[in-house]
Amino acid sequence: MRLHLNENTAGCSPAVMGVLTGLGRHAAGVYPDYDEARRAVAASLKVGVDRVLLTNGLDEGILAATAAAFRDRRGGVPEGVGVTPAFDMYETLVSAFGGRMVTVPMEPGFALPGDALRRATTGAARIVFVTNPHNPSGVPAPAADLLALARAIAPVLLFVDEAYIDFGGETLVSEPWFDELPNLVVGRTFSKAYGLAGLRAGALAANPETLEPMRRIVPPYSLNAWVTAALPAAVADTAYRDWYVGQAGESRRRLTAMCARLDLPTWPSCGNFVLVRVGPRASAVVAALAAKGIRIRDRSTEAGCEGCVRVTAGLVDDTDRVIPALEEAICAER
Amino acid sequence: MRLHLNENTAGCSPAVMGVLTGLGRHAAGVYPDYDEARRAVAASLKVGVDRVLLTNGLDEGILAATAAAFRDRRGGVPEGVGVTPAFDMYETLVSAFGGRMVTVPMEPGFALPGDALRRATTGAARIVFVTNPHNPSGVPAPAADLLALARAIAPVLLFVDEAYIDFGGETLVSEPWFDELPNLVVGRTFSKAYGLAGLRAGALAANPETLEPMRRIVPPYSLNAWVTAALPAAVADTAYRDWYVGQAGESRRRLTAMCARLDLPTWPSCGNFVLVRVGPRASAVVAALAAKGIRIRDRSTEAGCEGCVRVTAGLVDDTDRVIPALEEAICAER
Repeated sequence: MRLHLNENTAGCSPAVMGVLTGLGRHAAGVYPDYDEARRAVAASLKVGVDRVLLTNGLDEGILAATAAAFRDRRGGVPEGVGVTPAFDMYETLVSAFGGRMVTVPMEPGFALPGDALRRATTGAARIVFVTNPHNPSGVPAPAADLLALARAIAPVLLFVDEAYIDFGGETLVSEPWFDELPNLVVGRTFSKAYGLAGLRAGALAANPETLEPMRRIVPPYSLNAWVTAALPAAVADTAYRDWYVGQAGESRRRLTAMCARLDLPTWPSCGNFVLVRVGPRASAVVAALAAKGIRIRDRSTEAGCEGCVRVTAGLVDDTDRVIPALEEAICAER
Repeated sequence: MRLHLNENTAGCSPAVMGVLTGLGRHAAGVYPDYDEARRAVAASLKVGVDRVLLTNGLDEGILAATAAAFRDRRGGVPEGVGVTPAFDMYETLVSAFGGRMVTVPMEPGFALPGDALRRATTGAARIVFVTNPHNPSGVPAPAADLLALARAIAPVLLFVDEAYIDFGGETLVSEPWFDELPNLVVGRTFSKAYGLAGLRAGALAANPETLEPMRRIVPPYSLNAWVTAALPAAVADTAYRDWYVGQAGESRRRLTAMCARLDLPTWPSCGNFVLVRVGPRASAVVAALAAKGIRIRDRSTEAGCEGCVRVTAGLVDDTDRVIPALEEAICAER
């Protein structure tokens, strides 16, 4: 059981699978056509098609935003700014493009450290990364705080990674905000609620002028023909997405209730995962579950996550099988 | 009929399609596993697995090599060096990453301008791009000339784009050459001979140390689960690849013979395409074929390609249908 990468444990929707099974040898041989996928994604985000850039998973969106922010070669080593703990791709790509990562800790309870991020955004800063809801805690940041941060750091880019927003929290994808804030870029993914992690699709949403240097980075055939065929069916099947979001929410509640029973701290997650402070034996708990074929994520050695594991909240049936195993492993290691 | 993008007009091999039809909703939902694909590709290239980096099409390979070459932020605006005419992604990405493209013309007959490339590789140069066989002429460069160029420009990277090498020409993918030349990186694609353009897979091959900064650019799940499943079957089905390479070769011969009948200049192409000098009415010929549903590529306004169109050489049956239409359009526009 894969509960370590926040995947959709049900897979993609049956309607999507129906589209995929219709693709044959010819589709494999020709370069993909994006037009319908681009229109469908823009419509599902309720913005114009010129405010969306499809990417090969959100990882490529982070890559494109970072490279575009670092395009100007004057002024020495550019900086990316972010929080700890955070998704590791921000630092990986900032460094891969020759920049330096500057981080500040999350506030207690994994609240957004808005003031500290502002202070860390100095002369060499080109891009600030925030994940909302936060990963790995799942704690959401208020939209008003993110908008205030964008205004305060302009013209430095604010990259709001909304990988988990389908499960909860307030999205910043909105034409009026993009019009007001040309330094705002929002990342979305179809890997989580839509169950397309294996097929790779993400999107950046922003002002057309903000997206322009990112469009130049992303190759013209970066999405494959299977996922460009899948996307219109995926965003049309809102019933499937809503059902899965409901499953994740119920799994989150059951995991949180188990932790409360065992007196283990958790945080109010909006994502499809729960961060649990297991204590100094966290790695042993992860290993004990792995021995039973259940993979969860060890975050216990990261700053701000000491003693914590992250468990994906997916199908309720899966969660009900995991809870006793998790409880047993935790009690055995106490 | 799509004869404008040098795709495989037969699609992928039936064996590959057999693998793809076995994939279901679960595969769509989980992040792809690369291990088997990486091993299979390295074995097919006859190099160790540490000398191969799989990429989301060769476009991402060009992206990663360029970004890695430009990683050092000292020394102002970095330069990429290449030839005209050439594949447009080199200049697009050099510029997107904040660099400047410096180009020299191909020599008469589309021979490699080795001396001119050497002279153009000055202090700000970080990467030199060569396509072998050349696109859009299909003319191959001798391996010895490319190796001499790599030695002469070291430590500046020589990127040899072997997108069409499955159809002809001498590959530089070889462990001894990588050992000798840490500034050599070779790009390959599975879009052409293997018919996987829609599924997106390419590879970079080089010394492990040369690949290291490129590995940091390419996201960990940049290939999708369909293509990682397809690759082992694709490289195993050498009979299919060889059959298709034979079809492309025969199509090339028939297209070239038609041009000789009409007294139109062509060049000795090793690729799955033929460049034809149609003359000042080239764009009208392209439009006349498009009106019949046959797409070929208008290169007539590019420096070094004046009056030329490029026609993909794929299945012989397709070629036999295209030749009369092409002949008619050319004669009508004379």
